[in-house]
Amino acid sequence: MIKTPYLLFLGDAPDQLAAKVAQGIKDWRPDNAVGQFRLPTCGTTLGLTDMTLAEGLDAGAKTLVIGVANRGGVISKAWKEVLLEALAMGYDLASGLHNLLGEEEDLVAAAAKHGRALHDVRIPSVDYPIANGVKRTGKRVLAVGTDCSVGKMYTALALDNAMRARGMKSTFRATGQTGILITGHGVPLDAVVADFMAGAVEWLTPDNEPDHWDVIEGQGSLMHVSYSGVTMALVHGGQPDALIICHEPTREHMRGLPEYKVPSMEAIRDVALTLAKVANPDCVVVGAAVNTQHMGEEDAKAYLANVEAAMGIPAVDPFRFGAERLAEALEAV
Amino acid sequence: MIKTPYLLFLGDAPDQLAAKVAQGIKDWRPDNAVGQFRLPTCGTTLGLTDMTLAEGLDAGAKTLVIGVANRGGVISKAWKEVLLEALAMGYDLASGLHNLLGEEEDLVAAAAKHGRALHDVRIPSVDYPIANGVKRTGKRVLAVGTDCSVGKMYTALALDNAMRARGMKSTFRATGQTGILITGHGVPLDAVVADFMAGAVEWLTPDNEPDHWDVIEGQGSLMHVSYSGVTMALVHGGQPDALIICHEPTREHMRGLPEYKVPSMEAIRDVALTLAKVANPDCVVVGAAVNTQHMGEEDAKAYLANVEAAMGIPAVDPFRFGAERLAEALEAV
Repeated sequence: MIKTPYLLFLGDAPDQLAAKVAQGIKDWRPDNAVGQFRLPTCGTTLGLTDMTLAEGLDAGAKTLVIGVANRGGVISKAWKEVLLEALAMGYDLASGLHNLLGEEEDLVAAAAKHGRALHDVRIPSVDYPIANGVKRTGKRVLAVGTDCSVGKMYTALALDNAMRARGMKSTFRATGQTGILITGHGVPLDAVVADFMAGAVEWLTPDNEPDHWDVIEGQGSLMHVSYSGVTMALVHGGQPDALIICHEPTREHMRGLPEYKVPSMEAIRDVALTLAKVANPDCVVVGAAVNTQHMGEEDAKAYLANVEAAMGIPAVDPFRFGAERLAEALEAV
Repeated sequence: MIKTPYLLFLGDAPDQLAAKVAQGIKDWRPDNAVGQFRLPTCGTTLGLTDMTLAEGLDAGAKTLVIGVANRGGVISKAWKEVLLEALAMGYDLASGLHNLLGEEEDLVAAAAKHGRALHDVRIPSVDYPIANGVKRTGKRVLAVGTDCSVGKMYTALALDNAMRARGMKSTFRATGQTGILITGHGVPLDAVVADFMAGAVEWLTPDNEPDHWDVIEGQGSLMHVSYSGVTMALVHGGQPDALIICHEPTREHMRGLPEYKVPSMEAIRDVALTLAKVANPDCVVVGAAVNTQHMGEEDAKAYLANVEAAMGIPAVDPFRFGAERLAEALEAV
């Protein structure tokens, strides 16, 4: 559990793209971000109040979150000075960098000295159990995709918001580093050892109130040959009551696999539902979430109408047009 | 790569079951075992020649393989003395123990001093790549099961033998610790980090001659909720041209999951083939391997005849009655 709220460290991020993790936090959990900290060479902004470390503390920040990519996989001297100062002042640090805070000797020493925590969200910090498959109380919905990076995390976050807006009980469950930094909690599933993947998902989505929904962030695709094992662990460990099929219609091939065509939403629906029913025979497919960002509004709406007619389930772009109809479909489960 | 041949260390194994890894080596790669080493308190035998460490070296042994389970997860003083002596005399050590050779300071120091290798086959020793899905030359067959521990490794080993007996080019590819110790090479797939599972399988089954078959040891089951992600990585990383469906008919529920019924062979066939075709559209199901060890001979033969009639593919117990018909079916692919 990463302590919230955060001060968002943008460092010397040259542009918006470099700060996309920080952007995700600001977009989806604005209450988690008291402000932004930028170095003089920073070339972008989130539009949050610029704060010094001291001002961040005054505003209640508990953790300095490194919400940017660093260059060349090395934590620069300019960054290091800020991070050391933050530890001395009382901040925890959290990071999704490939090079780990926990491998920087000076940061480790400073954290120990000041009694602060270093959170590297790319690696597991828990000894997960082997999955036991025991039926859990409460409900779960999982986003499954035709490909990687089709909007499964945004779908889950938008759905979680829409459900809470309807007064439903809902918790977004992060399974990747951005999601973990956004919410302060989760499992970095792609870094878990194979035998414990499904157990990690069970751990993440424990028994809950009968009318509570875990909205589980999906990963990969059952038909993406590089990562399908991770997806499989979500389908079985997540024990979903409901699936949402996620798709990006303009993609020409599977991400990173030029020889592989993107499967149809129907193909993913059929194989995902067959496998999901092993863990939960009552599982149903409740809706489709289409990422229409590369389509004009007319085209997007026509595409969604076609999907809805062909598959017989609500089809929405939850980020562009809202996730209310998916929330409504879940309420009826 | 573990250097062969081996001297098999049985230690103080009380019975046959405790020595089952050594038994597997003796059964499947007798040429890899020059003899057995037993402590005075050992209560079992493989029927191999008893040798001292010196006699093992004279017989050509390169590696002392710990082919037994140890008690309480601790390497005893009696074992340790033998292992240290073996390193000093020129042996490498290989082990499938949960407690690792590489975590015993005295063994690590002795191995360094004498320039010997310590092989812990439960953990990966390679940085595997992320799977790229590129079509490889040569052919591959994968054993997929309705459950864990239904005889996938024995099926693959028997098939490999039968194929070579027919003059086919074949290599057994181990994906678990016993298989790795039997052959001296492989991937401990259940210990690989999630993102790299399918890549590890690609690494294990590289380009080969067009008429060469990799016989890939299966793991888990696509319908075993604890381990299905590992199985999925084999189906996609293995890029199989052929599948063999493995089953144990007398099991009352999925292994370790009392609430889960064992699926039908047809159900596993359908979902495995659908997913395998993503990586290899030409994949076919060539046969069924039924573990009939808990059935009388009449019942076993009747069961196999029924499976064969129902599924329209050769159905054999490869360990009990031979794997020739599976090899024949593969030759026709």
